[in-house]
Amino acid sequence: MNRPTILISNDDGAGAVGLRKLILIMRKLGDVVAIVSENPMSGMGHAVTMQQPLRARLVSEEKGYREYITNGTPVDNIKLGKHLLLKKAPDLVVSGINHGSNAAINVIYSGTMGAVLEASIDGIPAIGFSLDDYSSNACFDHTDKYIEAITRKVLKEGLPKGISLNVNLPAYSEKGPQGIKVCRQAQARWIEAFEERFDPYGRTYYWMGGRFENGDGRHDTDQKALADNYVAVVPTQFDFTAHQYVNELNFSL
Amino acid sequence: MNRPTILISNDDGAGAVGLRKLILIMRKLGDVVAIVSENPMSGMGHAVTMQQPLRARLVSEEKGYREYITNGTPVDNIKLGKHLLLKKAPDLVVSGINHGSNAAINVIYSGTMGAVLEASIDGIPAIGFSLDDYSSNACFDHTDKYIEAITRKVLKEGLPKGISLNVNLPAYSEKGPQGIKVCRQAQARWIEAFEERFDPYGRTYYWMGGRFENGDGRHDTDQKALADNYVAVVPTQFDFTAHQYVNELNFSL
Repeated sequence: MNRPTILISNDDGAGAVGLRKLILIMRKLGDVVAIVSENPMSGMGHAVTMQQPLRARLVSEEKGYREYITNGTPVDNIKLGKHLLLKKAPDLVVSGINHGSNAAINVIYSGTMGAVLEASIDGIPAIGFSLDDYSSNACFDHTDKYIEAITRKVLKEGLPKGISLNVNLPAYSEKGPQGIKVCRQAQARWIEAFEERFDPYGRTYYWMGGRFENGDGRHDTDQKALADNYVAVVPTQFDFTAHQYVNELNFSL
Repeated sequence: MNRPTILISNDDGAGAVGLRKLILIMRKLGDVVAIVSENPMSGMGHAVTMQQPLRARLVSEEKGYREYITNGTPVDNIKLGKHLLLKKAPDLVVSGINHGSNAAINVIYSGTMGAVLEASIDGIPAIGFSLDDYSSNACFDHTDKYIEAITRKVLKEGLPKGISLNVNLPAYSEKGPQGIKVCRQAQARWIEAFEERFDPYGRTYYWMGGRFENGDGRHDTDQKALADNYVAVVPTQFDFTAHQYVNELNFSL
């Protein structure tokens, strides 16, 4: 059997420890093309670049591995990969390992998950991996075997068309995760707060901050699984329709 | 009864004809605060600004109306409005009128709909309005009565918690739309193509282009409604979980 082609992106930039870890794991499983944004793209969600042209530089090439740096977003990277830099569509797209959780509502803000959803829109199996630890020197030692097991299964069995996986791993602990749970996106959200400052010219500017609030008491959410030290796997899709209300709502002049 | 407070944003910038039209319509229905991105934000999806601070300038103030210009994204604008620039949460958020359709998969790339979804995450009723005409001098003469009717109904009856509306209006025609249809997001997508060019220094750059492909044969989609000259209303939500697969998938080491 031919080695699968695996396309990798992320949203923490080319120097992120999590990206380097993911590349190492995937090179065991297939031929890898990494297409990575030059600048940090955390919080870029599903943004695409429309106001300026895109550039891509080949920065590394060896047997079974190529790496490009682009000026685009994670979603741009997937489009560039599929339609330009790869000779054919990849067998799998993986994104991450993100420094910080993409559980609950974080999925909508996440560039890491933007890349994953973009692949699934194109019908390509895709997995996003995130670690519940924001620090740039987070420990990823416990993540290999979970990432490898989940990826091997998806490479072997595929995923339903249009479905991708949002995988969140607990932060490092000595005893390691309890196991893997398939779960639902928690209804938890950010309560923003803006810190007001003044620049040297007396003009006001704001830094966005906030705290995360989980008001979701369900037992099968990603947020709960992470809190219980499980690897949380949410099957994700990109249909925004609230189907239960289509027949209930009506409007007329 | 007090006049409702309506927060407006968009993704085509402060000078867009569609934004000015929406502000005029909403000022008939309530007190309006417009918070608008200085730069065009088409394609910014649900992006938030995390790498730099935000600024907001009050550029217009009169009875029942204020307008701010920001350096943020449409989603930032809603966060700034709710948590900083308004004294209390608005009664309604509206976004648009976008120059160009946000039907089908466009919802995930759209800054206009990013603002709407952000409001609904915060539990605020929200409506995105888009015109199926990309030109900057598109005619909006036929849109008033539909936008007003839909908005009046939402102001009166509210929307289910977490649900927003994605409203797409057909391009101008002499006979006008046939009516309003509540429908589902079509499974249609972009097939990208990249145009390769060379800068004066001989370096390659790419412009992203492509064509839209509708492979969805269902009769109750937004794409079909627009094609039939109806105003398409899709109730939208922000749960990415593919619930039908939660109990079907399992992973182990």
